[in-house]
Amino acid sequence: MNEIAILHIPESQYCFATDTNTVRLRLRLDKSDAPSAVNVLYGGKYTFARERLAARMTLAYKDRLYAYYTVTLRLSDPRLAYVFELVDGGKTFYFSEDGLTEKYDFEYSYYNCFQYAYINDCDVMKSVEWMRSATFYQIFVDRFDIGDTAKDKSYINLKWGDVPNPKSFAGGDIKGVTRRLEYLRSLGISALYLTPIFESVSNHKYDISDYYEIDKHFGNKSDLKELVEKAHAAGIAIVLDAVFNHCSENLCEFRDVVKNGKKSRYYDWFIIKNDDPLEYETFGDCAYMPKFNTSNPEVRDYLVNIATYWIKEFDIDGWRLDVSDEVSHLFWRQLRSAVKSVKPNCVLIGENWHDANAYLRGDEFDGVMNYAFTKACLDFYAFGAFDAEAFACKLNELLMRNTDTVNSMMLNLLDTHDTHRFLTQAGGDKNKLMSALAVTYFFTGVPCIFYGTENCVEGGYDPDCRRTFDWAAERVDNPVKSLVKSLAALRRDRAFVDSEVSVAAKDGLLVIERGGYKLTVNESGKPAKCGGRVTAGNKFAGGIVESGGFAVERV
Amino acid sequence: MNEIAILHIPESQYCFATDTNTVRLRLRLDKSDAPSAVNVLYGGKYTFARERLAARMTLAYKDRLYAYYTVTLRLSDPRLAYVFELVDGGKTFYFSEDGLTEKYDFEYSYYNCFQYAYINDCDVMKSVEWMRSATFYQIFVDRFDIGDTAKDKSYINLKWGDVPNPKSFAGGDIKGVTRRLEYLRSLGISALYLTPIFESVSNHKYDISDYYEIDKHFGNKSDLKELVEKAHAAGIAIVLDAVFNHCSENLCEFRDVVKNGKKSRYYDWFIIKNDDPLEYETFGDCAYMPKFNTSNPEVRDYLVNIATYWIKEFDIDGWRLDVSDEVSHLFWRQLRSAVKSVKPNCVLIGENWHDANAYLRGDEFDGVMNYAFTKACLDFYAFGAFDAEAFACKLNELLMRNTDTVNSMMLNLLDTHDTHRFLTQAGGDKNKLMSALAVTYFFTGVPCIFYGTENCVEGGYDPDCRRTFDWAAERVDNPVKSLVKSLAALRRDRAFVDSEVSVAAKDGLLVIERGGYKLTVNESGKPAKCGGRVTAGNKFAGGIVESGGFAVERV
Repeated sequence: MNEIAILHIPESQYCFATDTNTVRLRLRLDKSDAPSAVNVLYGGKYTFARERLAARMTLAYKDRLYAYYTVTLRLSDPRLAYVFELVDGGKTFYFSEDGLTEKYDFEYSYYNCFQYAYINDCDVMKSVEWMRSATFYQIFVDRFDIGDTAKDKSYINLKWGDVPNPKSFAGGDIKGVTRRLEYLRSLGISALYLTPIFESVSNHKYDISDYYEIDKHFGNKSDLKELVEKAHAAGIAIVLDAVFNHCSENLCEFRDVVKNGKKSRYYDWFIIKNDDPLEYETFGDCAYMPKFNTSNPEVRDYLVNIATYWIKEFDIDGWRLDVSDEVSHLFWRQLRSAVKSVKPNCVLIGENWHDANAYLRGDEFDGVMNYAFTKACLDFYAFGAFDAEAFACKLNELLMRNTDTVNSMMLNLLDTHDTHRFLTQAGGDKNKLMSALAVTYFFTGVPCIFYGTENCVEGGYDPDCRRTFDWAAERVDNPVKSLVKSLAALRRDRAFVDSEVSVAAKDGLLVIERGGYKLTVNESGKPAKCGGRVTAGNKFAGGIVESGGFAVERV
Repeated sequence: MNEIAILHIPESQYCFATDTNTVRLRLRLDKSDAPSAVNVLYGGKYTFARERLAARMTLAYKDRLYAYYTVTLRLSDPRLAYVFELVDGGKTFYFSEDGLTEKYDFEYSYYNCFQYAYINDCDVMKSVEWMRSATFYQIFVDRFDIGDTAKDKSYINLKWGDVPNPKSFAGGDIKGVTRRLEYLRSLGISALYLTPIFESVSNHKYDISDYYEIDKHFGNKSDLKELVEKAHAAGIAIVLDAVFNHCSENLCEFRDVVKNGKKSRYYDWFIIKNDDPLEYETFGDCAYMPKFNTSNPEVRDYLVNIATYWIKEFDIDGWRLDVSDEVSHLFWRQLRSAVKSVKPNCVLIGENWHDANAYLRGDEFDGVMNYAFTKACLDFYAFGAFDAEAFACKLNELLMRNTDTVNSMMLNLLDTHDTHRFLTQAGGDKNKLMSALAVTYFFTGVPCIFYGTENCVEGGYDPDCRRTFDWAAERVDNPVKSLVKSLAALRRDRAFVDSEVSVAAKDGLLVIERGGYKLTVNESGKPAKCGGRVTAGNKFAGGIVESGGFAVERV
């Protein structure tokens, strides 16, 4: 056994409870080791020296360097003590807090066994059930559709279909979303994530000047009420965008600071670096986006009240949390506690581009926008950095960053309003897009489609990725749209959603198996081989979809 | 480079802030690697692709398998992006979220660099300054001294000096502690940890029936007030024992459940497993100690109010948290937040026998009772399991479990009321005890002496470790007591306390260097060699203490 590779971390993604009697364990070993058995010896914390059970662990994930063995334990006592037992080359080893040893003294195990000392119910992260089986669609509201035909359109400065610039207003609004719910349902969408809709002078509205008002370009509160009601009737959840890292320079509390300086009662709401001239912490380098000081309890209460207001009054189903990695953990904990007590199945999705484990321990977010998944897909389909083996390894590695509970609520995406369009990154190759969509729907977590992807819209970085939705193209059928529908049907099958996902490379192809289906993927965008056959067409009902870069089979 | 050994975890003990402009980083490598340089390339999160600084990391800790490189970064921007650069055999490698690579594309670093996205002040764990330099003394109150000569002594059933049994009452009390403050000060003690003093029928009082009353055997509230006032006047902090995992079956809220069953308004205060006959979760197998249900917000509020009451009314300086690993994280977060807002320099010390990192991330405890340190000392001095090399490796490994902030507030102990006496474990060898005490005072963290250690009291497991204090022996000088005084003097020197600690094995001896002093330790209890000389005597003022198993020198 290569001891130097072995990793286990108590009360982490390597040991987590799914209820007060169930614990899942992971043990990381060197991928090139091949032990004849990996077991966990476990028992009650106070009886472990005398009485122990053994459970076999199975090799469930492999990444580039490591193999991960897992097991699920059902406990009669919520006080768990355990050590690992590894059998290799006829020798037995033990792995405890003291590392790998050939002997283990259970008499002194109270000093160095692993433990989950007591599983308290309030510490167990709960799944948001609808989220686990959801299919998301992200809408940049100004660019999706104009629904309010009666409104004052004088602010609109972009002709629908023209290429946007950073200051473009195209006229999309909440009613535009509501009138397209039937279309979205036909795509198999079960949840919408809308970019911000609150009062703001910009088209993106990430600089909010009043968190209690809908921006007049987008509509009003009754429009939102109608959207939520009709969406819920159509089985579609509504997730709004919470911009709690920063606000607009037009927020009245910030204007008070500009006017009154140190005398303002809101002075400590922001992070002031100099009084005269006024210098303050911002989002990025944007002076018009002052950063909130969430170390101030008043600010935390102010923002938490906003979050619960829109849930209580409008029954929204979740918040996507803008720039969440720059906001304090203390604030997020308070937010989660308040939100979940108002609506337990309200989902919280952070915007963390990096390893977000510190935010995903059960006391902050349910999941994050999975940009590490995005990057893996780009490395495979666009950048030529990954072959199938490397892609499979990376996907497994990403699963090992967090608990299974979190993994099932990660928002897996190919692109957003903050990236190039995936199709453009992939050189316009629709086969690659379809193949990547299939991976997105098959992989553990929740797929999220950026509006227009189904119409093969292209676009570079912001503002080009934020083009207006082409409703004429929508009326024409295309294989991407058909595929999106077929894949969404899969996710409506609980057996598919609740199944373990296995990701591996075989014969140069990526293979994902889940719930009786097998997805085979060829990175080059060329037809994928599956079982020796390469079939044309795009039929799903019969159990097989084969298209450019991938194939789906019943197994 | 042995990639499989490399470890870095963002926002963890591998990357933590000590203020909003200072971050400390650790990188773990294979101990057998010898890179010619280990650097961190770092910059602002939004400018990292264009502008970077480089800082050299130094090899600071070695354990059995790994070498740990560290660096402290002073930042102008509290948004940190970084990757590691390793130079080995003329080749340069990069280590990022994507692992070890020969090339690194800074253009795409926003996908896979490491980051501390923004250091928010409220997330930075603050040191309790008095704790960092404290020298603790643990008192089992019933066995320390009888101070109240006027009290009703009819409950006392153990003659002072006789061997206790589990039901013994010896008569020790709060006044007994108060009258010995001068003695404790002469030992160099700056903080007392008292086992529980609240109303309870037992001698140990870990089964509390009224959290708002002092047990009458121990005195009353004015006795506690007097103790705290006189202790503070003598420069001694008072830390009490908080038993929040469970209570006594005599707690009125539990009695109400026994009487009224499901109809009791306190039914959900406990974890009831069966109604008739009543079965409930307990501490261990002790039916007389029902476990609190800290998943219930009412219980959390009840216990938090107790914790703040004794701080606000009696100005105590901290809480030691009994069986803290079995209580919910949610509760501890709420407790910390309440306690620190009442008295920011109040210390919270958990009773976690195992790796407690999940409780030591800045939102729960300041430190824990360091039983892993205890076990390492036993392995070295008593069990023959460690040579000096193994001991040094283990001590370094323990430091790498948590941040430097936490390490400086860990309560390092050789024994407590829950273990055998260390001297007894070490076969009665006073040289070993003295040597281990020297290690305890030199090592990073806060030394804690169990009452009577200075008199070389022996004792097996509970109740034998809880013998009455021998005040006749106290009047006789002995080398252990002299040593404790000399070591305490060292800790009053801020330069000593604030210095980095280096722990290593050299020529079969353990060497700890700190703040201009060098401790050399010989595991066998035989005279330690230092600089070739072996001197008799036990003088410290002159800069050198040499005793059986150790030597202290000025360097």
